[in-house]
Amino acid sequence: MKFPIKPKKVKGAHPSPVDALVYPRFSGVPTFMRLPHVPRADELDIALIGVPFDGGTTYRPGPRFGPLNIRVQSAMIRPWNPVLKTDPFSRWRIADYGDLSVNPLSVDDTYTRITKQLQDVLKAKCRTVCVGGDHSILLPILRAVHSESGPVALIQFDAHGDTWSGHFGSPHSHGTPVKYAVEEGLIEEGCAEQVGLRGQVYSEHDFDFAKKHRISIVTAEEFHRGGNNLLKPFIKRIAKRPVYITLDIDVVDPAFAPGTGTPQVAGFTSAQMIDVIRSLNGINLAGCDLVEVSPPYDNGEITSLLAANLLYEMLCLF
Amino acid sequence: MKFPIKPKKVKGAHPSPVDALVYPRFSGVPTFMRLPHVPRADELDIALIGVPFDGGTTYRPGPRFGPLNIRVQSAMIRPWNPVLKTDPFSRWRIADYGDLSVNPLSVDDTYTRITKQLQDVLKAKCRTVCVGGDHSILLPILRAVHSESGPVALIQFDAHGDTWSGHFGSPHSHGTPVKYAVEEGLIEEGCAEQVGLRGQVYSEHDFDFAKKHRISIVTAEEFHRGGNNLLKPFIKRIAKRPVYITLDIDVVDPAFAPGTGTPQVAGFTSAQMIDVIRSLNGINLAGCDLVEVSPPYDNGEITSLLAANLLYEMLCLF
Amino acid sequence: MKFPIKPKKVKGAHPSPVDALVYPRFSGVPTFMRLPHVPRADELDIALIGVPFDGGTTYRPGPRFGPLNIRVQSAMIRPWNPVLKTDPFSRWRIADYGDLSVNPLSVDDTYTRITKQLQDVLKAKCRTVCVGGDHSILLPILRAVHSESGPVALIQFDAHGDTWSGHFGSPHSHGTPVKYAVEEGLIEEGCAEQVGLRGQVYSEHDFDFAKKHRISIVTAEEFHRGGNNLLKPFIKRIAKRPVYITLDIDVVDPAFAPGTGTPQVAGFTSAQMIDVIRSLNGINLAGCDLVEVSPPYDNGEITSLLAANLLYEMLCLF
Amino acid sequence: MKFPIKPKKVKGAHPSPVDALVYPRFSGVPTFMRLPHVPRADELDIALIGVPFDGGTTYRPGPRFGPLNIRVQSAMIRPWNPVLKTDPFSRWRIADYGDLSVNPLSVDDTYTRITKQLQDVLKAKCRTVCVGGDHSILLPILRAVHSESGPVALIQFDAHGDTWSGHFGSPHSHGTPVKYAVEEGLIEEGCAEQVGLRGQVYSEHDFDFAKKHRISIVTAEEFHRGGNNLLKPFIKRIAKRPVYITLDIDVVDPAFAPGTGTPQVAGFTSAQMIDVIRSLNGINLAGCDLVEVSPPYDNGEITSLLAANLLYEMLCLF
Amino acid sequence: MKFPIKPKKVKGAHPSPVDALVYPRFSGVPTFMRLPHVPRADELDIALIGVPFDGGTTYRPGPRFGPLNIRVQSAMIRPWNPVLKTDPFSRWRIADYGDLSVNPLSVDDTYTRITKQLQDVLKAKCRTVCVGGDHSILLPILRAVHSESGPVALIQFDAHGDTWSGHFGSPHSHGTPVKYAVEEGLIEEGCAEQVGLRGQVYSEHDFDFAKKHRISIVTAEEFHRGGNNLLKPFIKRIAKRPVYITLDIDVVDPAFAPGTGTPQVAGFTSAQMIDVIRSLNGINLAGCDLVEVSPPYDNGEITSLLAANLLYEMLCLF
Amino acid sequence: MKFPIKPKKVKGAHPSPVDALVYPRFSGVPTFMRLPHVPRADELDIALIGVPFDGGTTYRPGPRFGPLNIRVQSAMIRPWNPVLKTDPFSRWRIADYGDLSVNPLSVDDTYTRITKQLQDVLKAKCRTVCVGGDHSILLPILRAVHSESGPVALIQFDAHGDTWSGHFGSPHSHGTPVKYAVEEGLIEEGCAEQVGLRGQVYSEHDFDFAKKHRISIVTAEEFHRGGNNLLKPFIKRIAKRPVYITLDIDVVDPAFAPGTGTPQVAGFTSAQMIDVIRSLNGINLAGCDLVEVSPPYDNGEITSLLAANLLYEMLCLF
Repeated sequence: MKFPIKPKKVKGAHPSPVDALVYPRFSGVPTFMRLPHVPRADELDIALIGVPFDGGTTYRPGPRFGPLNIRVQSAMIRPWNPVLKTDPFSRWRIADYGDLSVNPLSVDDTYTRITKQLQDVLKAKCRTVCVGGDHSILLPILRAVHSESGPVALIQFDAHGDTWSGHFGSPHSHGTPVKYAVEEGLIEEGCAEQVGLRGQVYSEHDFDFAKKHRISIVTAEEFHRGGNNLLKPFIKRIAKRPVYITLDIDVVDPAFAPGTGTPQVAGFTSAQMIDVIRSLNGINLAGCDLVEVSPPYDNGEITSLLAANLLYEMLCLF
Repeated sequence: MKFPIKPKKVKGAHPSPVDALVYPRFSGVPTFMRLPHVPRADELDIALIGVPFDGGTTYRPGPRFGPLNIRVQSAMIRPWNPVLKTDPFSRWRIADYGDLSVNPLSVDDTYTRITKQLQDVLKAKCRTVCVGGDHSILLPILRAVHSESGPVALIQFDAHGDTWSGHFGSPHSHGTPVKYAVEEGLIEEGCAEQVGLRGQVYSEHDFDFAKKHRISIVTAEEFHRGGNNLLKPFIKRIAKRPVYITLDIDVVDPAFAPGTGTPQVAGFTSAQMIDVIRSLNGINLAGCDLVEVSPPYDNGEITSLLAANLLYEMLCLF
Repeated sequence: MKFPIKPKKVKGAHPSPVDALVYPRFSGVPTFMRLPHVPRADELDIALIGVPFDGGTTYRPGPRFGPLNIRVQSAMIRPWNPVLKTDPFSRWRIADYGDLSVNPLSVDDTYTRITKQLQDVLKAKCRTVCVGGDHSILLPILRAVHSESGPVALIQFDAHGDTWSGHFGSPHSHGTPVKYAVEEGLIEEGCAEQVGLRGQVYSEHDFDFAKKHRISIVTAEEFHRGGNNLLKPFIKRIAKRPVYITLDIDVVDPAFAPGTGTPQVAGFTSAQMIDVIRSLNGINLAGCDLVEVSPPYDNGEITSLLAANLLYEMLCLF
Repeated sequence: MKFPIKPKKVKGAHPSPVDALVYPRFSGVPTFMRLPHVPRADELDIALIGVPFDGGTTYRPGPRFGPLNIRVQSAMIRPWNPVLKTDPFSRWRIADYGDLSVNPLSVDDTYTRITKQLQDVLKAKCRTVCVGGDHSILLPILRAVHSESGPVALIQFDAHGDTWSGHFGSPHSHGTPVKYAVEEGLIEEGCAEQVGLRGQVYSEHDFDFAKKHRISIVTAEEFHRGGNNLLKPFIKRIAKRPVYITLDIDVVDPAFAPGTGTPQVAGFTSAQMIDVIRSLNGINLAGCDLVEVSPPYDNGEITSLLAANLLYEMLCLF
Repeated sequence: MKFPIKPKKVKGAHPSPVDALVYPRFSGVPTFMRLPHVPRADELDIALIGVPFDGGTTYRPGPRFGPLNIRVQSAMIRPWNPVLKTDPFSRWRIADYGDLSVNPLSVDDTYTRITKQLQDVLKAKCRTVCVGGDHSILLPILRAVHSESGPVALIQFDAHGDTWSGHFGSPHSHGTPVKYAVEEGLIEEGCAEQVGLRGQVYSEHDFDFAKKHRISIVTAEEFHRGGNNLLKPFIKRIAKRPVYITLDIDVVDPAFAPGTGTPQVAGFTSAQMIDVIRSLNGINLAGCDLVEVSPPYDNGEITSLLAANLLYEMLCLF
Repeated sequence: MKFPIKPKKVKGAHPSPVDALVYPRFSGVPTFMRLPHVPRADELDIALIGVPFDGGTTYRPGPRFGPLNIRVQSAMIRPWNPVLKTDPFSRWRIADYGDLSVNPLSVDDTYTRITKQLQDVLKAKCRTVCVGGDHSILLPILRAVHSESGPVALIQFDAHGDTWSGHFGSPHSHGTPVKYAVEEGLIEEGCAEQVGLRGQVYSEHDFDFAKKHRISIVTAEEFHRGGNNLLKPFIKRIAKRPVYITLDIDVVDPAFAPGTGTPQVAGFTSAQMIDVIRSLNGINLAGCDLVEVSPPYDNGEITSLLAANLLYEMLCLF
């Protein structure tokens, strides 16, 4: 798959959300954004795909229910974006692809399954928007993307760098995917940026990996002062390279996104988060994901609601 | 449609739940009991149908979200009933039909819609298991059943008789469907039984309607002492007549079913409720519904979970 | 005040609940059972009185909000009791008296205030139904009752005996009122029964006080086997003596009454609780209270709802 | 009623909140801001009025419980505003008027009732602060205001424009009152401003109605950048015209106001919201409302708490 | 270790719970039953051990937080059991041993760790009461027990048989430990009983394994009718053999134990559960566990509270 | 104790948090920040001390559970602060000291106990970080500090001034400690600053005490505009004087800190709060506390999580 990709001319209507002025939003079988359930990649330009795996969590579990609850809360999404002035559903053929098959009892088996299934989707020239699941799924996703399109640039919204080398004697967890993605060459050297890092770390050496591999960092503290402008140098540097966005919901403050596994205070507001996604308009988006929504901890479902909106905003970047 | 109905011989496999030993129960687009979504009545013997209307509630609202949440919580249902020794999914073609179109802004418009849509289903010789919604939907359901099959016997599990004549100047609410069903002749005279009534009423005359129309009553107090046996005289009396079961979840105690709109203490336990449904095995079931699950009040989703099990047990009665 | 008391002939209508067939139950300023707020004892036969004090709790606090939340949840109460065949609101003049003035910063000051205020009510020949608050309020209530009417018999529904002699160096807490009431002679010797005791205690000597003072005990384990009949010998023994009922909601199992401060598993069901209250019909009721509802721990408000119903059933005993 | 209105000289004390230094805030029958319940308009300058109707909701229901829960959470309100340096309770006679009679089963009947009852209040020269209920109540409120005082200017704080023409075949819902108010001439042409709009819409034509009728719009995105100053041109333009403020709580971000029916991310913070209300000081306020607080979805009651404070701040604008 | 074991004579005081009449139950670092934290098996007769692993769950996760929350809720436990007339803390040296080291990222690694660590405890002649964690931990526990003491009899309280052979291609999950324990000879042939099974299964062949291996079954339906007596034949048959009890909290009804991963309606009440444990008094208890408490789903913490009480009752069986 | 204090040279390792890369954060007996429980002041430089008293609350109770829940939520704390570039655990010997003995039944007794116990700690040259508990504990804490070190400067983060003279006839509550601390000379005249005050007060005279005693005030409204810089003049003025920080969590907005007893809208965000604490780096910190976290009202535990982070940030100021 070569980037950038142009919208295809297709006969007939695109899949579109059920009309809520006719059918109430509380009715029907819940799919992402009330789009049809279309488990065939060759009929789609972009697939919304659930990846309900949380076997990589090290603290609170729960993201295995992320796709389900984000489906339910995405019932409020309407098609037209008045800020970016676009309707992604009329621009691209987008639908709910369903969930990938995962094995909650094995990280390794799940990694193999995810990469294999996504390769099939990508081969059909359908880009993927994965809905986690915990952040451990990033590695097998990037492996699939790499096998189809080569290395990508990475924008990571996250409270944590996820570059640790393992936990409890196991290499793969939700705290390690970026390390292995970099070491496996899935991300282009010098083309990764982490936005929103904050909170205590284990030692001052926790950032050594990022320095060594020229990962740019915009901390939450810097972002609270400098805002979207701080991302511009990186965006300029990666120019027209294909970019993959991975959005760990814990980049957002627990007040706005309580439903997550390793919440970190002093994060982004929902307004900042929506705004920074929109500021990326114009990048050459190869794919994206949103991870770490943990419904059992999501008071009032506001995390899933925010996640649904962030997925929509990312759809508008394609 | 003439009762009783025999299972059809059909070619090919029946719709069956996704296998949870292969695909985890937390994954996929949620449908009733993980059955396929089949919105075509002529392919089914029994349709699980959502009726997400709560415009008839007089106290707490919320049952409009009943079908959605019961879908989600029904992910735990497995096919074989070891007590009744049956698998309804292999006996009948059963699927998730989707939700009826309703108008949350108008009781009258919704009544017309429900009756019309259900008539279309029933005409296709497909029986219906309606998932409410509030109890006001019983009237348009019985109108549809009557128009296809004539009057039925009624077994009503409920904390309240629902024979009031109106609230606030309006005739139709969730407290009135039985009165109008009786007066419209939808229920065969002398062939209705109410089980589980309890709690204070407005006056000693509240039971006059039931007496006048020979509605049998087994109060919760009586049931706590006499159990399933108290229903036997009625079951014997209605013999092989087609029976419609309407199950208001508030018949169950708020400890077991907190998610409902007019909860009444001292109700049935879940074990009593499951058991009394099973005790009806052998009746000639024309159709059934389960109403008044109000997800906003359902702590821990245990009401929706119980509702899913009760729907399954009623499926085993067909 | 001499017992028993007869209903007074009064001119004009009794205070009665707002009619929910005309005004929805979710509307209006919330009072106990939607009765008028009448802070004048001489206009009433029975006063529903809030006593929002929880300065005597030793574990979870919260019962200070008991009167407020029980007011809110009592909106479902209707007037006619079809089991006892009575309407207490037409038999007696009953209203919401409001709350007593308490001092959350001082047990001693509150004790003085409660006794004083209740004496004023009792002097007006108005009996009291106090809504706690924690169980420490029982002592100043019984002091007031005693000062007007002499010693009473006591029926205590409770998971705990509340006969400890103090906590942390202080004499008065929610675990001690019965000890001091007995020692102060507020309760007639040999005329107290505790129903529902269960759970571990500190040592086998915890029951020595009860034995010494001839307090009858029906444990929860005994009640689960023997039921209401176990109370009959006591009821017979106290004959026509004035009886005070104190109902600690923790006598009920946490599944039915989670909102309490020292919950104890294996308690009464709501059906058992309603039923045992009704079985007391015919006693000479001097007054009663319901305590230890802790709204911050009341999931789904089912504890307050049960409390409202139990208050209603106790009103039917007058 | 002609605007502006001056505070009346009255003999005796104004209604004032119960003193919380003497009577704890958790005690007593809950009224708005612990003010007396005074259901007589001729004794008041400003009436706090509950309008517990949510029959116009199209997604999550619940605002019928808004007045009740806002009453409960308003127990924290104290009289003196140190920023605006005013005490509204000593300036005006303000009390809890109680709730209007509504019919949860019929939008049309409720519309008639609301207009009629408010006309009676307004005729007594008492201005109204209505506490919803869903936003559908705005139309019958404005009809009453119009019948007494002619067209008003409108300031609408809201995530949504509420200018749709209907849902599901019915004209009136919580998404349509502004359209009909404009078309019925209740709002002066060119004198309406909507503040806080955001989120996706159905199409780019969703703003055509606003443009046609010269409704000013300050989107949330604009407000996050420009703040209160963006409202100044409109305030200047409407000069001394009587202004009606309608405040849909969903203008506030779900982190600060989760308890609402159609929550929209990236909204106002509570600090922004309080501040923008205060910035309106000096307008000629004809009346106001606060709507769409849905208690079943209000985690931690923070929405009702915020609503109570916003009602207080609006009282300070009179 | 040979069974039965006699209490040792020890010098000095046994570990005992902090006295709650002196130190409030809400204070201090929370340990099981407010016992000291003693991570040295040779100082103890019985160790309360947390096993915070939930990598074997197939539906809702969360039991990794079981030991933590049961510690917190066990603060209510007092020492003397008035029904069994014993104080386990004075009979045996019992303390909070702390948690085993587990690897949430790997079932296999965790299995090895659990067996190894428990063998060290058992070698010190200290029996274990393990607090899960999900039911998958039963297998490595029984392996440790077997390596020290040979095969045991098993009493399993559970809604599910847990004799499946695997999920999603992996052999070990919380649904399989009994199968492997039987096949590995950890349980004496013909000496296992399952109590409380209920709910649908996959097919009528789901019980073939139990039949083949002569596992006795008392279903929940049978227990609701026959009670404790149904266990007597088994108890008699195993006579004085060492018995291991495994208690999956989902044997209890979701109303009493909502906080679990695969809840099944129509289960035991808390009173039935406490009572059936007590009925085992006199068996030769080799060890026990309580599993599947999932705090993220535990509304009102009543599941952890019940679990703490059940652990206490099991301690009284030693 | 003379300030400033230098880190001691000590042999052997400092107490340090359990390594979460080896032992999962959900495991083990919960202590503050997973530090060892060391109830001996002479082995520590700084003691984290629970003060579980809430007998001074005037509205919602609950802070007695503050130390417990903050312990649990502090499991996420890591040692290195990348903004202040320090690791407090390697700089000072810090541990969980346990809870002070308090008497929930008596403010006076508790005051005596707190002062006495803290004096013992301070005498051992160990500074204290107290975790409340309600704000009434500030007075006995400052009495202990004063008795060891004389008057201190005070920085108070709080929505309320806490300078009232009493409630309900009692002098000491959570609304009065600052008044008495000033009057008793515990705080140096002119060396107190209150940051974050907001919300209505009783009258314009509520600030008279502050004016009279030259307490500086930075209101929330001022802080939202001027930020950290507004504190600089005060910091400069107190120069190198020993400073005590008292942090009432209600200074933070209810969206970020719902779990508190007298929540006030329009407060600080968590990012503002963390940032303003860090801006104090360089002061001569004599001790500090964090109070008014009320777990029963803490939806999603985000208040306790924030509190744990704020305690950590304050540790970094030593």
